[in-house]
Amino acid sequence: MTPEEFRDAGHRLIDWIADYRTTIDQMPVRAQVAPGEIRNRLPDKPPQQPESLDALLNDLRDIIIPGITQVQHPMHFGWFPSNASLASVLGDITSSGLGTLGISWESCPALTEVEQVVCDWLRQLTGLSEQWQGTIHDTASTACLTALLLAREKTSNYSASRGGLQAEPRPLIVYTTEEAHSSVTKATLLAGFGKDNLRMIEVDKYTRAMSPGALVTCIEEDIARGCQPAAIVASVGSTGVTAIDPVAQIAGIADENNIWLHVDAAMAGSAMLLPECRYLWEGVENADSISWNPHKWMGTILDCSLFYVRDPEHLIRVMSTNPSYLRSTVDDEVTQYRDWGIPLGRRFRALKLWFHLRLDGPDAIRDRLRRDLDNAKWFASQVEKTADWQVLTPVNLQTVCIRHQPAELEGEALDAHTLAWVNSINQSGQAFLSPAQLENRWMVRVSIGVEATTREHVKKLWELMQSTANECFSKNHGE
Amino acid sequence: MTPEEFRDAGHRLIDWIADYRTTIDQMPVRAQVAPGEIRNRLPDKPPQQPESLDALLNDLRDIIIPGITQVQHPMHFGWFPSNASLASVLGDITSSGLGTLGISWESCPALTEVEQVVCDWLRQLTGLSEQWQGTIHDTASTACLTALLLAREKTSNYSASRGGLQAEPRPLIVYTTEEAHSSVTKATLLAGFGKDNLRMIEVDKYTRAMSPGALVTCIEEDIARGCQPAAIVASVGSTGVTAIDPVAQIAGIADENNIWLHVDAAMAGSAMLLPECRYLWEGVENADSISWNPHKWMGTILDCSLFYVRDPEHLIRVMSTNPSYLRSTVDDEVTQYRDWGIPLGRRFRALKLWFHLRLDGPDAIRDRLRRDLDNAKWFASQVEKTADWQVLTPVNLQTVCIRHQPAELEGEALDAHTLAWVNSINQSGQAFLSPAQLENRWMVRVSIGVEATTREHVKKLWELMQSTANECFSKNHGE
Repeated sequence: MTPEEFRDAGHRLIDWIADYRTTIDQMPVRAQVAPGEIRNRLPDKPPQQPESLDALLNDLRDIIIPGITQVQHPMHFGWFPSNASLASVLGDITSSGLGTLGISWESCPALTEVEQVVCDWLRQLTGLSEQWQGTIHDTASTACLTALLLAREKTSNYSASRGGLQAEPRPLIVYTTEEAHSSVTKATLLAGFGKDNLRMIEVDKYTRAMSPGALVTCIEEDIARGCQPAAIVASVGSTGVTAIDPVAQIAGIADENNIWLHVDAAMAGSAMLLPECRYLWEGVENADSISWNPHKWMGTILDCSLFYVRDPEHLIRVMSTNPSYLRSTVDDEVTQYRDWGIPLGRRFRALKLWFHLRLDGPDAIRDRLRRDLDNAKWFASQVEKTADWQVLTPVNLQTVCIRHQPAELEGEALDAHTLAWVNSINQSGQAFLSPAQLENRWMVRVSIGVEATTREHVKKLWELMQSTANECFSKNHGE
Repeated sequence: MTPEEFRDAGHRLIDWIADYRTTIDQMPVRAQVAPGEIRNRLPDKPPQQPESLDALLNDLRDIIIPGITQVQHPMHFGWFPSNASLASVLGDITSSGLGTLGISWESCPALTEVEQVVCDWLRQLTGLSEQWQGTIHDTASTACLTALLLAREKTSNYSASRGGLQAEPRPLIVYTTEEAHSSVTKATLLAGFGKDNLRMIEVDKYTRAMSPGALVTCIEEDIARGCQPAAIVASVGSTGVTAIDPVAQIAGIADENNIWLHVDAAMAGSAMLLPECRYLWEGVENADSISWNPHKWMGTILDCSLFYVRDPEHLIRVMSTNPSYLRSTVDDEVTQYRDWGIPLGRRFRALKLWFHLRLDGPDAIRDRLRRDLDNAKWFASQVEKTADWQVLTPVNLQTVCIRHQPAELEGEALDAHTLAWVNSINQSGQAFLSPAQLENRWMVRVSIGVEATTREHVKKLWELMQSTANECFSKNHGE
């Protein structure tokens, strides 16, 4: 394809995207397709001849769009806000158009240095001190794995450079809670610690936050039995209920015992753009690593997860490679981001943050975050004052965990009712909610914060929830 | 930013990208900036007010473009072809525009199912049998780490589900060669095996391919000393010299000893679109995992690395998580690609392959690959018939490893001469080459295969190389 053909096709595609983004609110929120339906509509053999852009655009309209759960829809209240602000989309398009290669500073100096700049801008915008240096990972899962590798190598005094984890005499232990994201368990297993060496520390019954007392007890028991505490992963805004672990107290315990502390603020990091929210991660300056996702609530299109460390030398020592074919004459003077994460080749991800922050400006982002916090408070207040409805956990941010709990229902019957009304809403396509378990019982997470979601949409959701829950209850339990 | 503002900005950006791609060949190939120069030109404080698209476009022109080593330039012969075909760029733009979220099948059924389809198209196009199932990773580094985790867990009978790697009594061993990509060593260390348990198997002096005899001997010695062979990583087209390990023989050895075999065909995978090249990975059907990068020579914009396995159940068992907040009513019927790799959240990467294959068509891609193979042969023949010039290793694909070696020079003087003339070319901006070490001596890799590179460009490079090398020699060693 020539640049002139690209120009024509690109203009048509931009129009197509703008039209799509204009009409999202008229689509069902959750994709209304059955498993295999999309695959069955696509040829199982690769194309033989070149096809036209028209063919592609038709398939996008007829096959792809119906197969998308519209997370940019104002009535999407599931999982977490996965905002793809159009300013950041422009940055992502620029990255694609440039077709750069990030494997060393030399292969694209701009890629490295703009990343340094935007990571530092976000550091300042979230109130972190100058001791933190950052990079962009794809996701918080990868950041957490990296953090646990750093912890493993620090505790074992760089076992990877010798006999590896197998040569370490004392079992290395990781501490977190059941509320932590599933990626913490995954990272623990992938890093080789083993499930038996992962401790799920007790949480507060109501706040679901890690109990510092229980953490201390567990560490003491592990040391007494000859184990070596290696890492603590504290959650600031857990995925299930937005639980906030007490970072300051945990950091004190980590420091006393020389344990690596990783703060997973994947969700809550966005809130740190608001000074009034920063008390939620008080003590974070004493952590060893932090990750948070601008690709969630803040709205820089996925994938964009920030990973900050206080000691880049340790990071580089654990993650670096330096083959001859990647050396250049200026290696001593530059940052090689390949040594800050797992992949060698990297896209020019910094551009989406650069465009987002410059075109929208931090004030507009902060205003929107505050709007969502207000909407969550308002919604929680409505739920609280309504009979048979309950808010189950503290509303720390923009997620409200609730249940419709008529007096007649408990245990499995209540579970069945919860899943029935939420599935009914999801199937209707009018709104989307993700249920989750709290102490092994289903509840519903209302995650507010899509860029397009206004108070009106939250009101509409609340009406829909009440009517659907009541209808389900009447149908299954009524007269 | 509203969709209408995006429409206007997007059109301007598309024109900007098309103009940029039209003028790449007039730019210096290697970025002509000093370390820190770009960073110093950007504000160290985050923006306070929203800025205009004009401000961004001006900065792209004045600051970013000069900071890019132009890997799409027809005179780029460094590292490897990192082609970003414009058809695939359109697919990447579509992915950005849609702003989808890949965390489960339910969050975007189309993302999952188009990925299944295109991975299967590429399977067919490269002549692999139906036993292989694929997914898209960011890079071959991540694919290699995943493969070694699969090997570790298979050999240790899922140690991660118990006491982890530390509880395994016998040291687990990984086998590869010095020619293998640096990511193999990195993955071995990150997966916890430890450097002492990584064996660099002897290679053939000329082809740089792994010696099967040496591999067998090493495995036997390891078993005799109580170690447990766990993984072999064979390279098909190594980064340094495009070495081709003998996969069939290695697969036989792996099978006999129950060792996981990962085939790293990051570079050579593209060649497998050509039936006449498939002898290069003969025996690949008996491997356990394969990775290769359409984002290299084939030209699907980075990041796009394919990872195939024969036993997805093992992959899922090692990599899966299933938290309550990600469950849906159809989980038994669908593929969850989060369980096929490290990150949870995934972009809609399949679109760039889908656009690339459909808009360009496989024939055009194959024609281009054959053009590059011919150019490499032609170039090698020119070098071979010229006094004082040497082709150092077999030209298996599109990379030609050479040296200018006047009789007067050897050892460190030769090294100095090699680096002098290649640095002179790179500094001139007229072409870019990456030097690398072969048996601890510098040589020059001429990697042919940029989409825009024709025979004329290769001729121009050859003239430039001769004149520059001669000039450097005269200056430093002449009368």
